[in-house]
Amino acid sequence: MQSPDTERHLAALLLHHEIELFNTRYAAALDEQRLQDWVELFVDDAFYLVTSRENAEQRLPVGLIYSEGKAMIQDRVFALEKTAMFAPRYLRHVIGNLLVLGEEANGDLRAQANYVVLQVLFDRPDATLHQIGSYHDVFCRTVDGLRLKERRCVYDNLLVPNALCIPV
Amino acid sequence: MQSPDTERHLAALLLHHEIELFNTRYAAALDEQRLQDWVELFVDDAFYLVTSRENAEQRLPVGLIYSEGKAMIQDRVFALEKTAMFAPRYLRHVIGNLLVLGEEANGDLRAQANYVVLQVLFDRPDATLHQIGSYHDVFCRTVDGLRLKERRCVYDNLLVPNALCIPV
Amino acid sequence: MQSPDTERHLAALLLHHEIELFNTRYAAALDEQRLQDWVELFVDDAFYLVTSRENAEQRLPVGLIYSEGKAMIQDRVFALEKTAMFAPRYLRHVIGNLLVLGEEANGDLRAQANYVVLQVLFDRPDATLHQIGSYHDVFCRTVDGLRLKERRCVYDNLLVPNALCIPV
Repeated sequence: MQSPDTERHLAALLLHHEIELFNTRYAAALDEQRLQDWVELFVDDAFYLVTSRENAEQRLPVGLIYSEGKAMIQDRVFALEKTAMFAPRYLRHVIGNLLVLGEEANGDLRAQANYVVLQVLFDRPDATLHQIGSYHDVFCRTVDGLRLKERRCVYDNLLVPNALCIPV
Repeated sequence: MQSPDTERHLAALLLHHEIELFNTRYAAALDEQRLQDWVELFVDDAFYLVTSRENAEQRLPVGLIYSEGKAMIQDRVFALEKTAMFAPRYLRHVIGNLLVLGEEANGDLRAQANYVVLQVLFDRPDATLHQIGSYHDVFCRTVDGLRLKERRCVYDNLLVPNALCIPV
Repeated sequence: MQSPDTERHLAALLLHHEIELFNTRYAAALDEQRLQDWVELFVDDAFYLVTSRENAEQRLPVGLIYSEGKAMIQDRVFALEKTAMFAPRYLRHVIGNLLVLGEEANGDLRAQANYVVLQVLFDRPDATLHQIGSYHDVFCRTVDGLRLKERRCVYDNLLVPNALCIPV
């Protein structure tokens, strides 16, 4: 028989783990260049933004990537898959410092996490820091499990190396 | 009905998660430059040290930062907030590999973790590794939750870039 | 009284945590240069491989390190401890994005995780990215707890800095 307090901590822990697993699968889809699997982690009317910390702090509605709705996210993937620049690199995400911020009345979940994306370009031998920043998320539950309703990726780098806009 | 073994594992897991969350909030306070919130994560007679692995292995009582008591930690924050050098940078902590080492007779908790602090300077476009190392901690329980009684930050870098002593 | 669903999630979470702890201890043994402790994390007929992503994707049976059985792993440690090159560096592992893939009929557990190994050489002041990649693992249960039956370390870097083959 567990105390109500333990039950509450346990529920928080299970939720934390569920979101952590989501982020791990999200990272794996991008690292393994399974972009179609990545798209499926968003709901139809999802908002996906990649913007600089500077812009985010000034609440400027601009970004390196700005997608309103899954169709726009899907379009970006089509475009990426056609470019010759996407393939010749390896990316590796490390996501940490997950913080579950709370649950809204409608069941939506707010969370944030830090991310580091490391990159290996095929014409350079060493690994480099491609992008570092934080995710600011809204998740919702669907019949397929958690899905992203909103992910704002706020990067710290002032300049993201190479102009190519790769999802993070 | 759970077995005593499962109960024990569960208790260990909940404690692990509690300390992990503490570290996440600690990192967020520093990353978002909320230094006053950072100070509040220590108890009044807390010991806070940032020292090199070399010094730590020789048990030399010196450090880049050496603070006995919260008042000294607070003083450092006042000093930092007055310098012009603190602001023009973004820091991003990634804390991982948490290991809860055990509970002492008085309820104090010993733990360690690895940390990576990434830095973006405002006059340089790329992100760099500012400091890597490990935390060696003693936590205690207060009415406000876990607080640090001791945090020894032992960094691997032989030379920490730029002379400024930023808490990690 | 918990629902079967919660029980199942809880069991998954406990297993996840158990493997995460294993990885943390594995990393600590290497970071603290306790190579003999590292060897003890493998079963007698363990397979340990460090290979490039390129080779792994082409399923080439070659690697920077290729060890069939604990005796070969042990031999490598003896060799390393005799070289003058091993000591003058600090390594720091950050392991994240653990994914437990499933349990086989015989109780073996499959899992993967991402790793970043940071390095500080004693004749250079700054920390560098030594190796980034992913672990592809098979664990089994022994009387001493989880042990590695197989660990394939697949690194993304095209060229690992300095020829020395350090376990990761």
